[in-house]
Amino acid sequence: MSLLTVGTVAFDAIETPFGKVDKIVGGAATYISIAASYFNNDINLVSVVGDDFPNADLNDLKKRGVDLSGLQIKKGEKSFFWSGKYHDNMNKRDTLVTDLNVLADFDPVLPEAYKKSDYVMLGNLTPAVQKRVLDQMKKRPKLVAMDTMNFWMDIAMDELKTVIKRVDILTINDEEARQLSGKYSLVAAAKEIFTMGPKFLVIKKGEHGALLFYKDEIFYAPAMPLETVYDPTGAGDTFAGGFMGYMAQSGRASFANMKRAMIYGSALASFCVEQFGTEAIKPLDKKQIDERVKQFAKLVQFSM
Amino acid sequence: MSLLTVGTVAFDAIETPFGKVDKIVGGAATYISIAASYFNNDINLVSVVGDDFPNADLNDLKKRGVDLSGLQIKKGEKSFFWSGKYHDNMNKRDTLVTDLNVLADFDPVLPEAYKKSDYVMLGNLTPAVQKRVLDQMKKRPKLVAMDTMNFWMDIAMDELKTVIKRVDILTINDEEARQLSGKYSLVAAAKEIFTMGPKFLVIKKGEHGALLFYKDEIFYAPAMPLETVYDPTGAGDTFAGGFMGYMAQSGRASFANMKRAMIYGSALASFCVEQFGTEAIKPLDKKQIDERVKQFAKLVQFSM
Repeated sequence: MSLLTVGTVAFDAIETPFGKVDKIVGGAATYISIAASYFNNDINLVSVVGDDFPNADLNDLKKRGVDLSGLQIKKGEKSFFWSGKYHDNMNKRDTLVTDLNVLADFDPVLPEAYKKSDYVMLGNLTPAVQKRVLDQMKKRPKLVAMDTMNFWMDIAMDELKTVIKRVDILTINDEEARQLSGKYSLVAAAKEIFTMGPKFLVIKKGEHGALLFYKDEIFYAPAMPLETVYDPTGAGDTFAGGFMGYMAQSGRASFANMKRAMIYGSALASFCVEQFGTEAIKPLDKKQIDERVKQFAKLVQFSM
Repeated sequence: MSLLTVGTVAFDAIETPFGKVDKIVGGAATYISIAASYFNNDINLVSVVGDDFPNADLNDLKKRGVDLSGLQIKKGEKSFFWSGKYHDNMNKRDTLVTDLNVLADFDPVLPEAYKKSDYVMLGNLTPAVQKRVLDQMKKRPKLVAMDTMNFWMDIAMDELKTVIKRVDILTINDEEARQLSGKYSLVAAAKEIFTMGPKFLVIKKGEHGALLFYKDEIFYAPAMPLETVYDPTGAGDTFAGGFMGYMAQSGRASFANMKRAMIYGSALASFCVEQFGTEAIKPLDKKQIDERVKQFAKLVQFSM
């Protein structure tokens, strides 16, 4: 079934303790689309770039089954650019540069064909843009997931909450769950966040894995311990893309399916961090992904 | 089979965001012995206290099958006292007071009956004391586990390494694994630490669970997400006690058994943090522990 995603399509400059890249293709919607494409070839992308964005990368997305009719290409303008540097503890990073460029006045316009998409993944963006996308849908999608971050909680909490109210699944990290809920315990945070609208909560904990909360149930998807972690950029978006790509393919929003989606998302994210940018997740095949999923199963397997 | 443990038996004063206690019974060997007692009633304790230590608590240990003939009681002296305050992020704490008292010149002397113990759990203590215990063993135990901390890495790394060389299992936290190995990746850290002697490495990550490394295998035991975490003090020792208590009972140092031991240790630790000090782990029964273990199984269970 069709998966609509909105998010940035952009350039990144990244420095980690293991290397540095000056200008590579990134952006939440890029990672989401590539990851989702391993499960689903009916992806509707909503975003904006300048005319500096490489055609080769757009063509690569098209080949993966990503519809780009919702991608605005602004003549004479520049694509969004983000630059960041990771600490030795790669769970933290400093933002060095944020050039909004085309993103400054981005007004997402959904092509007619997008408006009945079955699944929606709202990538991390200003809540106003996420809301504009939902407002244009002609029917209530089967499942709406939303990613966001502490930045929007700091400067636009009220508006953010009006969007959160309309989604089924919220994906945030542990600190953000604490900030949003005002609760320290993640179990208590989940209960509080459920009163805000979402039925499902995914708490991403980077190298410590991810938790899925649903009613009184909790599922813990570990992160794969890796020998080489070069660049965590995009891991959360890759997780979300794998997660929603799997859900859109499987067609049923059951807890059991969502647990599998957590593992597929975690598997994709585990590839993502092994190289810079989208390098590692672009050339994957189904067999490699299934192999990694088996490793996840083995990682937590025990018998009593 | 018999389990020998050495570590502190002491008083703690603890402040967490959720409360404060002035002087309660604590110490690594206390937590280890109580946790292990749910699996094993042949525990040989080596430690030292002053004559200020409550008889009621010593009797409680005896009732659990803990032999106290290796516990020195120093007349006119005071027991070890530690006081700490946890940050809002309960993974960090500041030590406020460390009164060594009887621990300052502690020379562990093993009763004859202890010297052929099958299993040994060296609780966190100065490496010299841990070494003295091993030196007195009359036969190589089936399995020796050792806990330590960054403090000893800072001030006594060389001596620490001579003890690490002699143990089968090292249990440390993620930052300590990085400090000891000089490697950021925990997979790389494990490989490095294996060259130092241990065949098994347990990396404790607090609320993020624990990892067991053995050769090229990795097992991830999650921590139970809890609604109320009052006090993390002793959780690592409780984990170690449950782990080694289970191993001593099961009698075989296989990887499969060790995975089960990780889950039992994690289950005990999950009780520990729900109340201050040893309050939560003292009144448990087998049924409660098995119930918690089932919850752990459910937490990570998925089918592909």
